[in-house]
Amino acid sequence: MTESPPTIGVFDSGFGGLTVLRALIPRLPRARFAFIGDTARLPYGSKSRRTIARYAVESAQFLVREQGAEFIVIACNTASALALDAIQDAVPVSVLGVIEPGAAAARVASTTGDVLVIATDATVQSHAYRAACAAQNLRAFEKACPLLVPLVEEGWVNHRVTDEVIRIYLGELTAEAKADGLKPDTLVLGCTHYPLLRQNFERAVPHGVKVIDSAESTAEAAARLFNGHAHSPSDTQSGCPIQPGDEQTSLGWAESDTSDEAEIQIKCFATDSVEKFERLGSRFLGRPTGNVELVDLGG
Amino acid sequence: MTESPPTIGVFDSGFGGLTVLRALIPRLPRARFAFIGDTARLPYGSKSRRTIARYAVESAQFLVREQGAEFIVIACNTASALALDAIQDAVPVSVLGVIEPGAAAARVASTTGDVLVIATDATVQSHAYRAACAAQNLRAFEKACPLLVPLVEEGWVNHRVTDEVIRIYLGELTAEAKADGLKPDTLVLGCTHYPLLRQNFERAVPHGVKVIDSAESTAEAAARLFNGHAHSPSDTQSGCPIQPGDEQTSLGWAESDTSDEAEIQIKCFATDSVEKFERLGSRFLGRPTGNVELVDLGG
Repeated sequence: MTESPPTIGVFDSGFGGLTVLRALIPRLPRARFAFIGDTARLPYGSKSRRTIARYAVESAQFLVREQGAEFIVIACNTASALALDAIQDAVPVSVLGVIEPGAAAARVASTTGDVLVIATDATVQSHAYRAACAAQNLRAFEKACPLLVPLVEEGWVNHRVTDEVIRIYLGELTAEAKADGLKPDTLVLGCTHYPLLRQNFERAVPHGVKVIDSAESTAEAAARLFNGHAHSPSDTQSGCPIQPGDEQTSLGWAESDTSDEAEIQIKCFATDSVEKFERLGSRFLGRPTGNVELVDLGG
Repeated sequence: MTESPPTIGVFDSGFGGLTVLRALIPRLPRARFAFIGDTARLPYGSKSRRTIARYAVESAQFLVREQGAEFIVIACNTASALALDAIQDAVPVSVLGVIEPGAAAARVASTTGDVLVIATDATVQSHAYRAACAAQNLRAFEKACPLLVPLVEEGWVNHRVTDEVIRIYLGELTAEAKADGLKPDTLVLGCTHYPLLRQNFERAVPHGVKVIDSAESTAEAAARLFNGHAHSPSDTQSGCPIQPGDEQTSLGWAESDTSDEAEIQIKCFATDSVEKFERLGSRFLGRPTGNVELVDLGG
């Protein structure tokens, strides 16, 4: 008898968090992944902490109770900033957010101890990165870059307009940080959409400035935590993909059809906008999302 | 005894509809205006028709019952497209949306009978402008321009990036319409944010193409309807502003302090994000919004 592979639950308010799932896949190749985007209730950024916590807890409970997730990654900056404690209290599995791993990676990268963080307006207003960086003895200068998410969603990634917008934002950010007396040598991409612009940023930053992709940092932290805590080593090692014809496959787990990726099993859920999720999600995931299933988590 | 001036209620899911209010003010100078932005529940575009209708009806009822509105302008394309009938059924006053007035103005402007419409993704997907134009014997080619709202909200109105984005969108739109056999001579700005970009579009369109600002068209239609139906002419003519010390003024109606605008009375409400509303709203309204009052319309 073969044991079922472990299931990792990944949650976002939208589908940007698929960049975190994309980074998780090669690090946990024997896992199954259940991703839910709470698209009916986005954006979380304008809502109260209490409301965001309620929404995020409902998604996490769905992943644990309905999908059997043994580990939860909150691939959403707003929910990580405002609801991580509430989610940890609400589910009996380990929960990891995206903010601390980004700050920890910046600690390793930075020599001056001064870092730049770009994110959405809601994340910047929460100052969650500033707090997480301070806990790492880093000074962080945060800036909202509201045009980058719509540019990514429009598909203008390799586009002169996007490069010009990045050049303008980086110029403002660097000047503002220097005016505050900082000597930044590290830039944290603090939004789950931004990994698609990582190469644009690497081309645009001043010489010597390192770019931290918080999706990658989170995936690395998740792999360490999951292998260390959520499963015993023997469980992880013995985990293997479900065979065709198995009950779980019939529940809709998408399997890649290339031999290299035969073990990758992903199931995506959304609370609304399944069409947009499927259309745009593959760009973030780097492979087709498969059929996205609509779920109702309530109002 | 002087009668109270008539109250016009204006509703949007956000604050873009303040461009419609801005256009209403000079056309109904003796009116009071109550504006509500349902900012807690935006964007409406990704929600179902039933949910949008419920939200929009709640806002319209607030304007009529709590603010005494005698006429409602739905300054929101999504709500106009999906909820106009529901609102008309729910309140005992006349209700006007933004879509038909834009299509009617295009009918007057167009010689070829072919028009271009730019709007948000949600409005385009509803094909409400196509239907309203067809009712005017016009062929409409619609295109979503998702970068324009964030560019306006970022304040990049007189900005080379915005002009470049407009040039790209207009080039794509014109080529696509011509490929469909249309000979467009009119461009309808079908989103309440776009009036701030009217001059950019007037500079960018091919020679001879007319630009229709649907906020202006809606305000003109509202003034005609309101003067014709909602009040008798004598009511409208006898309407005069409330004097300082009057009970209504103490309720928070903002009065301009310039003598030319002494009669303008505006009160703004939002269901969330009062700070953002106040910060950005003045750009759309062309004058300070005054203190924006937070109201709770329920979940």
